[in-house]
Amino acid sequence: MGAGEQSTDNVLSKALATVQAEVDECFDALLPVPTEAHAKLVEAMRYAAIGGGKRVRPLLLMATSSMFNVDRDAAIRAGCAVESIHCYSLIHDDLPCMDDDDLRHGKPTLHHEFDEATAVLAGDSLHALAFEILSDSKTSGDPFVRAELTACLASASGHDGMAGGQMMDMLADESEFTLHDITRLQQMKTGALLAASVEMGAILGKVAEEGRQHLRLYARDVGLAFQIADDLLDHHGDESKAGKALRKDEGQGKATFVSLMGADGAKAQAQALVDQAIGHLTAYGEEADVLRAIARYIVERDH
Amino acid sequence: MGAGEQSTDNVLSKALATVQAEVDECFDALLPVPTEAHAKLVEAMRYAAIGGGKRVRPLLLMATSSMFNVDRDAAIRAGCAVESIHCYSLIHDDLPCMDDDDLRHGKPTLHHEFDEATAVLAGDSLHALAFEILSDSKTSGDPFVRAELTACLASASGHDGMAGGQMMDMLADESEFTLHDITRLQQMKTGALLAASVEMGAILGKVAEEGRQHLRLYARDVGLAFQIADDLLDHHGDESKAGKALRKDEGQGKATFVSLMGADGAKAQAQALVDQAIGHLTAYGEEADVLRAIARYIVERDH
Repeated sequence: MGAGEQSTDNVLSKALATVQAEVDECFDALLPVPTEAHAKLVEAMRYAAIGGGKRVRPLLLMATSSMFNVDRDAAIRAGCAVESIHCYSLIHDDLPCMDDDDLRHGKPTLHHEFDEATAVLAGDSLHALAFEILSDSKTSGDPFVRAELTACLASASGHDGMAGGQMMDMLADESEFTLHDITRLQQMKTGALLAASVEMGAILGKVAEEGRQHLRLYARDVGLAFQIADDLLDHHGDESKAGKALRKDEGQGKATFVSLMGADGAKAQAQALVDQAIGHLTAYGEEADVLRAIARYIVERDH
Repeated sequence: MGAGEQSTDNVLSKALATVQAEVDECFDALLPVPTEAHAKLVEAMRYAAIGGGKRVRPLLLMATSSMFNVDRDAAIRAGCAVESIHCYSLIHDDLPCMDDDDLRHGKPTLHHEFDEATAVLAGDSLHALAFEILSDSKTSGDPFVRAELTACLASASGHDGMAGGQMMDMLADESEFTLHDITRLQQMKTGALLAASVEMGAILGKVAEEGRQHLRLYARDVGLAFQIADDLLDHHGDESKAGKALRKDEGQGKATFVSLMGADGAKAQAQALVDQAIGHLTAYGEEADVLRAIARYIVERDH
């Protein structure tokens, strides 16, 4: 590993550790446990939202917003809103009627630790929390920014975004999916929220429309590379590092990037997308180093 | 029935029929079925959102916003946002792991007509749709109004509102609930969203804080009367008119307003709340006639 890569690693590890601590702290402040009968619900939300996950989405948002000197306390709130949507989607995806998973971030899934009804409601409550955060003036004093953040996150997570992608995924057993179909599915299921994270950083930074195009192209490529890398990790990875069950898609005969392109083809494609993503950042100097490091990390991570 | 009441009935039936048609039309425009694999998801959303339900929440919103001359096309969008949250909550509450209901608005519940995974995702997608609608400039050209609408609906539907109330309800089997507990539960589970409907009408009308107090008191009383009337209907009502299973709470020995106050006590309490609600509207002339009619309808309806 060369000196340049070592320094990229340092940039990223520092940024990631900072964001992970900030996200936990922000969720902790947002979710005090009430003394009333619904305390159980808030405890379940805290179980899902605090102390787990890589926090890639808040990191993308913070890395983008910091390029435009956005106040960090405000931006981390928006980061928690994206993560809140991500957490709710994991809770609901893990339910017995969906992917029926037992393990998440190395802990029992929410419906195992609590129960199914609580899992549905904790997911729903984290979903609402995201929009409660974004519409609060603590996130931005500018109501236009608050409305734009809401519009961006709502459309990325709804029927034409994340939820639509998960629906396609549920139907994948019955369908003969081509590479085009899988790409579209993953763009909706994972890509939309990753892209929204970058976009929300730009919205907070009040970046004009023309300035957002390069960031959007970066986010699109990173999102797709992320999913291909996920399929590779699912194929090659170590369950103890992943903290969740692996090779379920393979077992069910579901099409993935690896099954359609082969492991080597998928690896080459992910690398090409990462290079392309970094290429979209040429207009920026070292202020975009964290975004560059995130792109590299995506194909190099082992969980 | 006196001439005055007859005319109240007419005011209400006309307003209700108009809103029901407008809500259906608006949802139809908001939810075109895509040609892609997630068409099933949008079909499920349409199944839940179009052509069913009394539309009490949009009616409250429209009745309030029309007092302040809000553009009707804009207001009906906000009405659909509240109804979208209401519909998602019914889908999730009907799931086998929650209330396990088979019938809703006289049709099979969504998880019976489709499947459980689709029901979870259609609920989640209607949830996101609500905030997509509110943050769109078609709902209000003023971003402050859009952000305020979002804040109001998100907090009413989250862990300290509707979802928290449903959590309390799930725990009611295990708890000895007093009248105070039931009142708090229902204020959260049903009252918060009914109150938000009135509040959102006032937000659209840019009503100043002091002007909102009377409307809030009206909404609080109407919300509680609504739930007491619901318990009475659950006790006395006709399943074919209700379009859903009745007397489940009684069967499970769960505390309700009727079990705690007796049917006569509950009826008197609902009527007193309705009178009190109407009393909060003395500052308004005939522009508040629909709000008055809604309050009366709540205790007089037979489903």
